[in-house]
Amino acid sequence: MALCPRAHVGVPPMSLALRGRSLALADEAVAKLRLARTEGVGPLTYQRLLARCGTAGEAIAALPDIAQSAGRQRLDICPAAAAERELHTLHKHKGRMIFFGDAGYPHLLAMLPDPPPVLSILGDVSVLSTRSVGLVGARNASANGQRMAEALATELAGQAITIVSGMARGIDAAAHEGALHVGRTVAAVAGGLDQPYPPEHADLQARIAATGAVVTEAPWGTAPQSRHFPRRNRIIAGLVLGVVVVEAALRSGSLITARLAQDANREIFAVPGSPLDPRCRGCNDLIRQGAHLAESAADVLAQLPDHPLREGMTRRPPAGMAEAAQAWSDADLPRVRAELRRLLSASPTDIDEAIRRSQFAPATVMAALSQLELALEVEVLPGGRACLLK
Amino acid sequence: MALCPRAHVGVPPMSLALRGRSLALADEAVAKLRLARTEGVGPLTYQRLLARCGTAGEAIAALPDIAQSAGRQRLDICPAAAAERELHTLHKHKGRMIFFGDAGYPHLLAMLPDPPPVLSILGDVSVLSTRSVGLVGARNASANGQRMAEALATELAGQAITIVSGMARGIDAAAHEGALHVGRTVAAVAGGLDQPYPPEHADLQARIAATGAVVTEAPWGTAPQSRHFPRRNRIIAGLVLGVVVVEAALRSGSLITARLAQDANREIFAVPGSPLDPRCRGCNDLIRQGAHLAESAADVLAQLPDHPLREGMTRRPPAGMAEAAQAWSDADLPRVRAELRRLLSASPTDIDEAIRRSQFAPATVMAALSQLELALEVEVLPGGRACLLK
Repeated sequence: MALCPRAHVGVPPMSLALRGRSLALADEAVAKLRLARTEGVGPLTYQRLLARCGTAGEAIAALPDIAQSAGRQRLDICPAAAAERELHTLHKHKGRMIFFGDAGYPHLLAMLPDPPPVLSILGDVSVLSTRSVGLVGARNASANGQRMAEALATELAGQAITIVSGMARGIDAAAHEGALHVGRTVAAVAGGLDQPYPPEHADLQARIAATGAVVTEAPWGTAPQSRHFPRRNRIIAGLVLGVVVVEAALRSGSLITARLAQDANREIFAVPGSPLDPRCRGCNDLIRQGAHLAESAADVLAQLPDHPLREGMTRRPPAGMAEAAQAWSDADLPRVRAELRRLLSASPTDIDEAIRRSQFAPATVMAALSQLELALEVEVLPGGRACLLK
Repeated sequence: MALCPRAHVGVPPMSLALRGRSLALADEAVAKLRLARTEGVGPLTYQRLLARCGTAGEAIAALPDIAQSAGRQRLDICPAAAAERELHTLHKHKGRMIFFGDAGYPHLLAMLPDPPPVLSILGDVSVLSTRSVGLVGARNASANGQRMAEALATELAGQAITIVSGMARGIDAAAHEGALHVGRTVAAVAGGLDQPYPPEHADLQARIAATGAVVTEAPWGTAPQSRHFPRRNRIIAGLVLGVVVVEAALRSGSLITARLAQDANREIFAVPGSPLDPRCRGCNDLIRQGAHLAESAADVLAQLPDHPLREGMTRRPPAGMAEAAQAWSDADLPRVRAELRRLLSASPTDIDEAIRRSQFAPATVMAALSQLELALEVEVLPGGRACLLK
C-alpha cells in the first residue's frame, strides 16, 4: 500500500491531454519523479527499487515497508501533487524530463554506476547522445587559458564534437562560447533550470538552450549550492567520451570532474602550462598521472574512441546490482548494516573498498547500503563513494 | 712504419720533466692526440684502431697501410709537433687532456657508442664523474623560463647534483648561474677552450672553471661553429644521468640533446608550458612522447637512477666492436664498402639500420664503415648515424 495515494486532483499530470495507455505512462513518470525526489532515494537505491518492484508505482507502494525494515520510522515520500507541479512547470517553460531507463536517456551517462534517476532539460534532448567532449577548468582562468579553451571548443565543435561544460565563469564559459561560434554545446548545471548560475550567465544559458541543451539533476527552483557541484560534475563526466582540463589548480573542482571521468573509463586530456602558474599545476599533475597532453583539437580527436560504447567504458558495473534486487530480505542484512556503519565514516569511503573489506557478498553489501541510504544514515556520493551521516 | 717520426724537437712532450716509463706514457699521449686529430679518425675509428693495434703509437705506424687498403691515397697524420704544441698550450693555461680509456675518463660518457677520443678540460676533471643532470633549453628563453631553469639548477645543486649545460645564452646560462649559487657546474662547449662562446660569457666560463669544469672535444684555438654543436650536445647527454629541457621550440638543438640522451638510455625530463608559446612546444612534445614532466627538482630527483651504471644505460653497445678489431683484412670488405655507399646517403642514416639492411655481419659492416670514414668518404655523426661525404 502506498503512503501517497496516486490522486490527480486539480492539476493534470502533464500539460497534454492524456488518455488510456498514455495516461498510465504519465502516471509512471509521476511515480518515478516522486521516487527520485524522496529523501534517501539516491541513484543506487532508485535503481534497486525499480529492479525489485518492477515499476515506480509499485516501488512507491512498497517504500514504507522497505524503509521500516531498514530502520526508518518516518518516511516522507514526495507527494504526487509536488511531482506533478514540477513536471507541469518544466513543460510550461518548454523543458523536458527524462528518466533513467527511458529510450532517450543519454546512453553514455547510463553507463555510470550511479546515473541520475531523472534529468531536467531545456533545449534539444538528442544532443545529449551525440559524440561529446567535456571541457572544464578554472573559474579564475588567465586570458590565455580562456583563449585556449575557446579555440579548442571551436575546433572540436567544427569537427562535429559537442562540447559539454559546467557554465561556470572562466574556462567553462569560454568553452561554451567557442562551441557556439560553430556548433552546439551542452551545459550541465548544479541548480534548477530557472536559476542560471552565475546570474550573469542567464543570457549564455538561453543561447545554449536555443541550439544545444542545458541539463540538471536538480528540481526546478533549486538554488545552486557548492554541495551540488560534484553531482553536476559527474553528469559532465558521464555524457562525454573524454574530458579536457584547461587550467586547474591542485584540488580544484575540475580535477574532480577528471577523476569521475577516469573512473568511468573516459579519456582524460590536460593542457599543460608553466609550473610557475598555480592554475596549471592541476593540469600538469594530470599529465604526470597519465592524462593525454593536449595542445590542439587534433590531440583530442586522435584519442577519442571511434565507437562510443567500447568495452570497459564503465569501470564499475554497479556491484552485485542484479543479484541485490533479490537480497532485500536477506537475514544477514542487519549484521551487514552494522558492519557498514563500522567500515564507513564521515569522510567519503570507496564503496568497492568497503565491499572488499566486508565479510559479505557484494550484492548483500549493496542491499544494506541502499537500506542505510533510505534510512538517511548514509549518503551515497558521485563516483562510487559513501559517507555516514550520523 | 709511421708517416710522422716521433721526434720531440724543441718542445718537450709535456711541461713536466718526464723520464723512463713516464716518458713512454707521455709519448703515448702524444700518439693518441695525433690519432684523434687526424682527419678521418672519428670516435669509432679511433676505438677500432686502438683495439686492433694495441697502442696509439702502433696505430700511427700502421695508419698509412690501413688507409691505403681503405682506398685513401694521401693521409695527413697529425704531426707530432702539432700534437705536442696543443698539449703544451693547454697545460700552460692550466688545462688538462684526458683520453678515452684513461682511468679518469668520465665513466658515463665512456658508455656512449661514440665517446670522444680526447677531452680538453679547464677546471676539476673529477667533477665530470659526479652525479650529474643536464639542463638545457632555448637561447631566446622567456624571463619565466630562465627563472625556472635557475631555480631548478639551484635546487638540484643543493642536493649535490652537478648541473651540466652548454653555456649558451638563455636557459643554459641561467642553469649555470643557478648552480653556481650553491655548487659546481660543468659547461660542455663546442669550440676551443680559449674561445668562449658567446664572447660575453667569458667571465661565466672562468667562474665555471674555478670550481667546476669546462670541457670540449675541439682542439685549442678552434672557433666554435654550429656544425660542432651536435658533438657538444652528445657530451652533455653522455655525462649525465638525465637531461631536463626548459623551453625548447620544435626542431631545436635542445631536442637533439634530449634525443642523444634518450639514445643513451638517460632519463628525459621536460618542463611543460603553454601551447600558445612556441618555445614550449618542444617540451610539451617530449612529454607527449614519454619524457617525465618536471615542475620541480623533486620531480627530477625522484626519477634519477640510484646507481649511475645501471643495466642498459647505453642502448647501443658499439655494434660488433670487439669482433670488428679482427675484421680489417676481411676479404668481403670491398663488397661491404660498396654496399654501404649504396645504403648511406647525404642525409644522416642510422648505422644500426644500415647494418640491419646489409647482407653482412655487424662486425664487418663496422669495419667497412671505419674504412670509409678513414677514406673521408663517410662522416660518422653523434648519435650513431652516418652520412656520405661524396
